[in-house]
Amino acid sequence: MNEPCFDAAHLGHLELLTNRFEESLHFFVNVYGLTESGRDGDSVYLRAWDDYEFHSLKLTASNTTGMAHCGYRASSRAALERRVAVIERMNLGIGWSDGDLGHGPAYRFNSPDGHVFELYWETNKYEAPEAEKPALKNIAQRYHGRGVAPRRLDHFNLLATDVSKMRDFMVEALGSRVTEMIQLENGRIGGCWFTVNNKGYDMACTEDHSGASGRFHHITYAADHRDDILRAADIFLENGVFIETGPHKHAIQGTFFLYVYEPAGNRVEVANAGARLVLDPDWETVVWTEAERRKGQAWGLKTIESFHTHGTPPITKG
Amino acid sequence: MNEPCFDAAHLGHLELLTNRFEESLHFFVNVYGLTESGRDGDSVYLRAWDDYEFHSLKLTASNTTGMAHCGYRASSRAALERRVAVIERMNLGIGWSDGDLGHGPAYRFNSPDGHVFELYWETNKYEAPEAEKPALKNIAQRYHGRGVAPRRLDHFNLLATDVSKMRDFMVEALGSRVTEMIQLENGRIGGCWFTVNNKGYDMACTEDHSGASGRFHHITYAADHRDDILRAADIFLENGVFIETGPHKHAIQGTFFLYVYEPAGNRVEVANAGARLVLDPDWETVVWTEAERRKGQAWGLKTIESFHTHGTPPITKG
Amino acid sequence: MNEPCFDAAHLGHLELLTNRFEESLHFFVNVYGLTESGRDGDSVYLRAWDDYEFHSLKLTASNTTGMAHCGYRASSRAALERRVAVIERMNLGIGWSDGDLGHGPAYRFNSPDGHVFELYWETNKYEAPEAEKPALKNIAQRYHGRGVAPRRLDHFNLLATDVSKMRDFMVEALGSRVTEMIQLENGRIGGCWFTVNNKGYDMACTEDHSGASGRFHHITYAADHRDDILRAADIFLENGVFIETGPHKHAIQGTFFLYVYEPAGNRVEVANAGARLVLDPDWETVVWTEAERRKGQAWGLKTIESFHTHGTPPITKG
Amino acid sequence: MNEPCFDAAHLGHLELLTNRFEESLHFFVNVYGLTESGRDGDSVYLRAWDDYEFHSLKLTASNTTGMAHCGYRASSRAALERRVAVIERMNLGIGWSDGDLGHGPAYRFNSPDGHVFELYWETNKYEAPEAEKPALKNIAQRYHGRGVAPRRLDHFNLLATDVSKMRDFMVEALGSRVTEMIQLENGRIGGCWFTVNNKGYDMACTEDHSGASGRFHHITYAADHRDDILRAADIFLENGVFIETGPHKHAIQGTFFLYVYEPAGNRVEVANAGARLVLDPDWETVVWTEAERRKGQAWGLKTIESFHTHGTPPITKG
Repeated sequence: MNEPCFDAAHLGHLELLTNRFEESLHFFVNVYGLTESGRDGDSVYLRAWDDYEFHSLKLTASNTTGMAHCGYRASSRAALERRVAVIERMNLGIGWSDGDLGHGPAYRFNSPDGHVFELYWETNKYEAPEAEKPALKNIAQRYHGRGVAPRRLDHFNLLATDVSKMRDFMVEALGSRVTEMIQLENGRIGGCWFTVNNKGYDMACTEDHSGASGRFHHITYAADHRDDILRAADIFLENGVFIETGPHKHAIQGTFFLYVYEPAGNRVEVANAGARLVLDPDWETVVWTEAERRKGQAWGLKTIESFHTHGTPPITKG
Repeated sequence: MNEPCFDAAHLGHLELLTNRFEESLHFFVNVYGLTESGRDGDSVYLRAWDDYEFHSLKLTASNTTGMAHCGYRASSRAALERRVAVIERMNLGIGWSDGDLGHGPAYRFNSPDGHVFELYWETNKYEAPEAEKPALKNIAQRYHGRGVAPRRLDHFNLLATDVSKMRDFMVEALGSRVTEMIQLENGRIGGCWFTVNNKGYDMACTEDHSGASGRFHHITYAADHRDDILRAADIFLENGVFIETGPHKHAIQGTFFLYVYEPAGNRVEVANAGARLVLDPDWETVVWTEAERRKGQAWGLKTIESFHTHGTPPITKG
Repeated sequence: MNEPCFDAAHLGHLELLTNRFEESLHFFVNVYGLTESGRDGDSVYLRAWDDYEFHSLKLTASNTTGMAHCGYRASSRAALERRVAVIERMNLGIGWSDGDLGHGPAYRFNSPDGHVFELYWETNKYEAPEAEKPALKNIAQRYHGRGVAPRRLDHFNLLATDVSKMRDFMVEALGSRVTEMIQLENGRIGGCWFTVNNKGYDMACTEDHSGASGRFHHITYAADHRDDILRAADIFLENGVFIETGPHKHAIQGTFFLYVYEPAGNRVEVANAGARLVLDPDWETVVWTEAERRKGQAWGLKTIESFHTHGTPPITKG
Repeated sequence: MNEPCFDAAHLGHLELLTNRFEESLHFFVNVYGLTESGRDGDSVYLRAWDDYEFHSLKLTASNTTGMAHCGYRASSRAALERRVAVIERMNLGIGWSDGDLGHGPAYRFNSPDGHVFELYWETNKYEAPEAEKPALKNIAQRYHGRGVAPRRLDHFNLLATDVSKMRDFMVEALGSRVTEMIQLENGRIGGCWFTVNNKGYDMACTEDHSGASGRFHHITYAADHRDDILRAADIFLENGVFIETGPHKHAIQGTFFLYVYEPAGNRVEVANAGARLVLDPDWETVVWTEAERRKGQAWGLKTIESFHTHGTPPITKG
């Protein structure tokens, strides 16, 4: 059983690295349909039209790919302090950063697999410039309909050497609940789906067979309608974007999904969860067996092999 | 600003009264697509296919219509106790009931307008009988696709003589946040939208011009896709159900809506919110002016006049 | 009964006039999502992404608005000759034109209400330049997803003083079938829906109460999915385009519709017909009474009053 | 180039054989959502809600599976006579039958691969009994929303030893146009898509590698919306129906598809074509190479292997 803790309010943003910066930026803005909200050094800040914060994706030029860090917003200043105290006890802390264009002071810490997380309270809420003001005042920004145009950041997936360690970490450090998981016949956990709020998941972690640690699997934005996902497939097709798998419906979480690779190789999903929420405060983790997973996705599509092998940064042979 | 309190987890169920019991039951089961999960005295317990509790609608034969009570589930036993203490200080308490087929002990209390609320922790989680077992174990019940077939209870709307009193009540008693509201030019509040979790709203309250108190406006279930709402319109049409207004998109909350009257006259909505959530822990209430509301719904449909006059029970002339 | 004649293959294009040329062109390209395929004098040629001909809309700068002419493609050279012979016997002929960028020689003729029609066989099939080549070779042009982005020209609607004369004209001159019509209680025909092929209609004619003749009611492109119409509503909303009515489903023909005015005032629809076709070769005209029409559109929306009064060019008072 | 002939109006019905009659009937009525319109001997007549004729599927109890015959309706009595004269010259005629509950006299003939075709003019148009009368008079029958509930018969697919012979047959006998085809590197034709009207195809023929002749590949009904196909997948899943492949979008014809096997093993598709029509009277056949087909379906899904091997009746080993 996972009781909700509520200290972490929601996933706020990811920082992704790209070694093909201009191409990646073109993809995220013109094909995927995000909007640039700022630039700073080697980074461009990007956002979906109903993200309420300044940004949800910080795209940073680099000589490699993968995730530089992920950030969660706390539910209050006190909640942030409670979490920091817990994480310091876990000896995973890196320390405070000053924040960036998107938010105030952030406490950084490591996952057991070496991914960098941060927690912050003070945020820079998006104030739409005139050209981006929405017609309806209860959404953050104009719906421009350019490219895929998802609504908001939804979740991300990290690869890890030992998923069970990541499970303990997410539950203890962030107060996440484990909504679903895959129990392998060898006793290991194949994958875990976590949430800090009423979404079915905001983070997933699956086993990395490559021997590497700290790698990134994918980032996902939510679109309002399944038809947006189908339309996205046509947009990716016409723009020469590599479609890895989908559209189809996941058995786990029931998400209607579509996976592509952005030009630098980071995996990007666009998804729709329908009206699914996890409202039950004492939700019991749904545990899937290997036998159940062999049936494939909800309607029978087999899980694509590259899902278990492709991560960023890529494995360097030597 | 509305800080989240989290003591109330979510709206759990409504009890609606009908003076045309068999017709209302036929509507909810065969046209609207709910499933009967139990019977007790004059009541039938109904549920949507992904409600995790035993029921979300208790339909009770009566000589009138309207809402007998509404129930929220607490986030924990301690949260329930905290809320009861608050409500007792507010002098709105009715007292403890033993619960019913759907849940354990419930603390009942009055709204300032005379509606009956209850809060409970112990619940009877739905265990699907063989014929209702879903193909995928992470949903509560089989998707049968009969009639409209919404996924889960979403929200309800109460009429009140003085919306501002209801606003104070919802914030103080349940710890609700006010996500959107209508500020009338005469200084009164025309309507308020409340949430205890990450949904945009689970309860709405609008002004009753009739002089009556404690009346009911509508109950709403959420369907996964906008196409479900459009399909519902065809199903209502073919079954001779009175369509009051829609399908269209609300300006407030952005909900894609369709309103009908069930045979006894209670207003019933089926709706889709897309991927909208209120994740921001310090969300500021969106305040709409009368001038803004005169523009009608999102795409220009004028708010139907009966929306301000039709409630249950009806006003008896004398 | 209307037996199919097949001489006319399909509606090919309209020429619309605008006295706000740049604004209209911006609307059709950036908001409605057509593509420019050529320019000639005061005209720009526009096309939807799966129109197989060079253009389906010729937008011409003028000091007024309305339709300059409409063009149908014949099924063969022989079919064209048969039709011209019929029309000449009807004394409605204007004569041959050389065609334009979009097609070869066209025979022009008048409707009884003064609208200009043309029929042609030789056409300039669209050859996509490199940047417009589709990923799949069986569609005419790349799906760019810009703005509303409908698939192809669908139908148009003309106002007329006497719809019964237009009915006789369409049946005799083009070999159209009357698939549906409105029979008024005063003995007149309120509206007629015509087709030359398997579509439910490619032309509609409704009564003009203004006393003017030869006026234009609207042009319609077909989008693939209902969700495209709903998405169009958001795009129109965000771009400040006046939405006259919809989205909703017509009772007649069952079309899912949305009507707006382009900047110069010409009415433009985007619509979806689902899988509806008129395949029956001896389809009997569906005749609607006034009483039936008073029920409004399919799901109860009342037909908007401006539908009976707004046409282009506008009526000049004097 | 394929000039339209128009003598054949449209595909009217298939007669399918089943050796699991009750299970197949349950599938077609309760899961797929057709309606029974009559019974006669070992056959039940079935129809979709907007088929205008008495039936579109005759399901006949048998000791095997596959297609007993397919029927096309002619555009007029004269058109029927013209076609019969052509077919008799081709020496493929079987002769006249009296028709059945669904239609009048029909001329039967063989395909080069041994499939039985028939052409008829007189038909028994569906007259909805009271309980099946639609709310809107321009559709044939009430939309009940039971199961998948497609709108109308769309097309079928036959396996053949030599597709090129089938191509010549369809063009000469029925006046079909070849809208798309697959040209194999070995010089043979891998598949052909035919139409007699404005649909992209009403019949497809693909190569049978089994050595058998006269076999059946699949029958397809059209649903109005893509969401109907996605919803169908959930309905099939919950009812234990074997899903072979999909939902996904075909590269050829662009159809959004979903294939299942009914209980006796006949392949059944439900599909949506969007707004696609072949309106061009001199449409040139789109020819796909093997290299192009190796890219898979529109969004990259590989064509499932069983698509080339599973037909009905099954191949008997011995």
